[in-house]
Amino acid sequence: MSEASPTLNFGTMTEVFQFLMEIDKLKSVQRRTKVLGTQRQENSAEHSWHFAVAAMTLAPYAPKDVDIQKVIRMALLHDIVEIDAGDVLVYDLAARAAVHDQEVLAAKRLFGMLPAPLNQQFLDLWNEYEEGETPEACFALVIDRILPVVMNLNNQGQSWVENNIRLEQVLARNAFIGDINPELWQHVRGHLDNAHAQGWLK
Amino acid sequence: MSEASPTLNFGTMTEVFQFLMEIDKLKSVQRRTKVLGTQRQENSAEHSWHFAVAAMTLAPYAPKDVDIQKVIRMALLHDIVEIDAGDVLVYDLAARAAVHDQEVLAAKRLFGMLPAPLNQQFLDLWNEYEEGETPEACFALVIDRILPVVMNLNNQGQSWVENNIRLEQVLARNAFIGDINPELWQHVRGHLDNAHAQGWLK
Repeated sequence: MSEASPTLNFGTMTEVFQFLMEIDKLKSVQRRTKVLGTQRQENSAEHSWHFAVAAMTLAPYAPKDVDIQKVIRMALLHDIVEIDAGDVLVYDLAARAAVHDQEVLAAKRLFGMLPAPLNQQFLDLWNEYEEGETPEACFALVIDRILPVVMNLNNQGQSWVENNIRLEQVLARNAFIGDINPELWQHVRGHLDNAHAQGWLK
Repeated sequence: MSEASPTLNFGTMTEVFQFLMEIDKLKSVQRRTKVLGTQRQENSAEHSWHFAVAAMTLAPYAPKDVDIQKVIRMALLHDIVEIDAGDVLVYDLAARAAVHDQEVLAAKRLFGMLPAPLNQQFLDLWNEYEEGETPEACFALVIDRILPVVMNLNNQGQSWVENNIRLEQVLARNAFIGDINPELWQHVRGHLDNAHAQGWLK
């Protein structure tokens, strides 16, 4: 949104539409993964859509106590903080730690644009995802991690190759998937060994 | 996904991951609306994310009988058929009628990639949205229509100007919003008159 745009009056919905125009910026936050079969990096908005649909389709494979609707809402909100803080590679542990404080401020600023009680509801949902302790947050994290892995397995290891990622890194960051969905991890584990053998992972 | 990609085995989840890789193509379907402040046309995947978050934020303004979780799921699935059928401008009524049969075939092919009962659940949800009769489908349609209108109001009428859209067309296609949310339509109506006066709408 141009800084010069005047605030349009939508009555009680004015703040909601200001928020919706502000988060349009997530469409310009680039990730490392490329859209399959293209040379274009995916952005965090389209990734969030992919993640939310993945939650819908993986619902039958979720632990029984998981509220999938909540996982979908987490997927839709989880990356909005990147509008202020940017996207950081999941394997860059130092940068991920450094960016955390910026993300907390971003969540306050962005979700704070909304009227009550939406502002607190959205912030609570984002915090729950970040803390990663509830069944919904754990299952959401599985999906957020597995999606770029499967995209890499279907794209000659594109983002692994471009970022010099090693098999041990992928195993260390994703082995928790085995605790939540052993069948899924068993298959992924085999495909990762194959990716390593093919040179897609160092 | 490259046609040459072998099918990766994910056990009972194999079909789900094939579907998730296939729908990655929605990230390459271009709409007429541009991402605010850029020269890039938004794609239907990032639009679907925006639509779903809009449903979350507009929940307090929905008619009381609307199940917002269902509206969110409709938002996430509603444009997937465009992978086969393409995006058609909402104001091009002849093209919209012509593309309907292709969209029905696309829904069968794409949702049909999923195992039961997901395949039928997704198809039913898409059909319900298309038919536009339930409270959820009506509210979803309001959001799908209002979002590009508000983006245009914040972007000097970009897609209206580029496609020679007239005020009467926007009024004719969107006046139903007044039946579902009179307050919203009252504000939009005023902004549309202003857009016409500024020459953003013919």
